[in-house]
Formats: sequence, structure tokens, C-alpha cells
Amino acid sequence: MFDNILVPFDGSVGAERALRKAAELAKASDANLCVLTVFRHHSMLEASFSMVRPNDPGNMDDIMRSAARDVAETAKNLAKEAGVEKVRAFVKSGHASRTIVGFAKEHDIDLIVIGSRGLGSVEGYLLGSVSHKVTGLARCPVMVV
Amino acid sequence: MFDNILVPFDGSVGAERALRKAAELAKASDANLCVLTVFRHHSMLEASFSMVRPNDPGNMDDIMRSAARDVAETAKNLAKEAGVEKVRAFVKSGHASRTIVGFAKEHDIDLIVIGSRGLGSVEGYLLGSVSHKVTGLARCPVMVV
Repeated sequence: MFDNILVPFDGSVGAERALRKAAELAKASDANLCVLTVFRHHSMLEASFSMVRPNDPGNMDDIMRSAARDVAETAKNLAKEAGVEKVRAFVKSGHASRTIVGFAKEHDIDLIVIGSRGLGSVEGYLLGSVSHKVTGLARCPVMVV
Repeated sequence: MFDNILVPFDGSVGAERALRKAAELAKASDANLCVLTVFRHHSMLEASFSMVRPNDPGNMDDIMRSAARDVAETAKNLAKEAGVEKVRAFVKSGHASRTIVGFAKEHDIDLIVIGSRGLGSVEGYLLGSVSHKVTGLARCPVMVV
């Protein structure tokens, strides 16, 4: 059914639900599973508006990349425990939806499985979440879980 | 993976693409496949703004229901040709996204597979299409194809 499945993973409950569904689909399709954790590039401008000021702002990107890597590795391990053999974890910085869609193009992804906020209401539709943006921008099928 | 898969089908190219993907998923899951064609209730108010006036407006709903039934049956036959054994066709009148989400609840649907307009651009995101509304409103996973 699918060759290359992508799960954007941010460690949320919705992302974990998506990961479990993606693992089922990957096993049924004998597909490669890519886990992608996107972190935001640290902006000095935003930091200047924040109440929290890092002591060493130059290292903030490294710290965030390292945290993102932990999150992605956790997802990779969850997928392996669920029985997926071909799983790889990736970390990228950038704007979430555009980074996910760009990754999908680069890696010949034919299915993105992404968690929703799961509100199941008009709110969910209005929030303009990452899953909605990815669904609108991606050129491959997107499953919102 | 799934027990009851729903494909909203309006006869468009996107809907046919979604149907083919749903057929693959139904076969892999040995799931029931429901095809649903939604037509709009004929509104006399709208008709009064239209250049085209039916001779017998009272029958417009019957005519639209009959056309919708043909569309749904076409989808059912396509699914059968694709090897799906457990497939049923349904027709309902109403607002597309709300009718689809309501049907999903009533029929214990655990996956909706729906066609996008396939623009794959910012336009796709901005258009506020039926697939976006369904993704935001549904309580089950939604695959936008």
C-alpha cells in the first residue's frame, strides 16, 4: 500500500497515537517508517520578548536540537517495540508544517500520519493546527489521527 | 487495522483516488467499506436566484437523490472491481462535511478516506474544502488523499 511513511513526532499524546497507527500501516505495507521531530530555530527577537532569558543564547539551538533528538529517538524505540523493522529518526529545525512537507518531498514519502489535537469539534477546525496545514500543503496522502 | 472505512464519494477525480486507496486499506484490514454520496437539499430560495428554473421544483430532491444514488453505485462497483467484498453504498442529503461526520459516528467508522482538491499549495490550505472540515470535525482518523 505504502513504501515510505512519515510520522512527525513532537512527543504529544496525539503524536503517539499517530505513531501507533503509522506502525500498523508500516507493518501491513512492509514500508520504511521515518520519524521526524521539528524544532524551532531559536530567535533572539522572540527571546527578547520572553520573560525567560537564557544565560548563553548562542547554545540554545544546540540544546533544542539535542532535546528534539531525544524525542525522535523515543519515537523510534516505540515503533521498534511495535514491531516495525525499518524505522529511522530525523531531526530538523524550522517552521513545523513547511519542514514536514519539505521532508516528505525529499524522502519520497507516500503517506504522512500526523496527530491532531483531537478536539473533534468546530474548535479543531478553526485552530489552524499543524495537521491542517500539512494536509493542505502536502502532495501525498495525509492521515490525521 | 480498521473495521469500518468510509469514503465520501462525489464522482470527482479526487474522490476516485480516495476510493482506490480506501479499497487497498479495506482489503488489508478485511474491513467493511461504506461509500457515501451526499447531495444538497434543493432550496427554493437558491432556485429563485438561479437562471435555471426547474419546471417542477417539487421533484428536484427526487432527481438529485436519484443522481446521487447512481454516483454511489458507481463507486460501489469500482470498489468491488478492486477486490473489496464487504462494500455498501449510501446516499444522504445535507451539508457535506456535517453529514459525513454524522454518518461516521452512526456507523462506528474508524477511518474516513477523503479526496482533496489536490492543489498541493497554499491555495489548498486556504480553500476551506470539505476534506479540511471533515478532518477538523471527525472523531476518527481521516486520510486525505
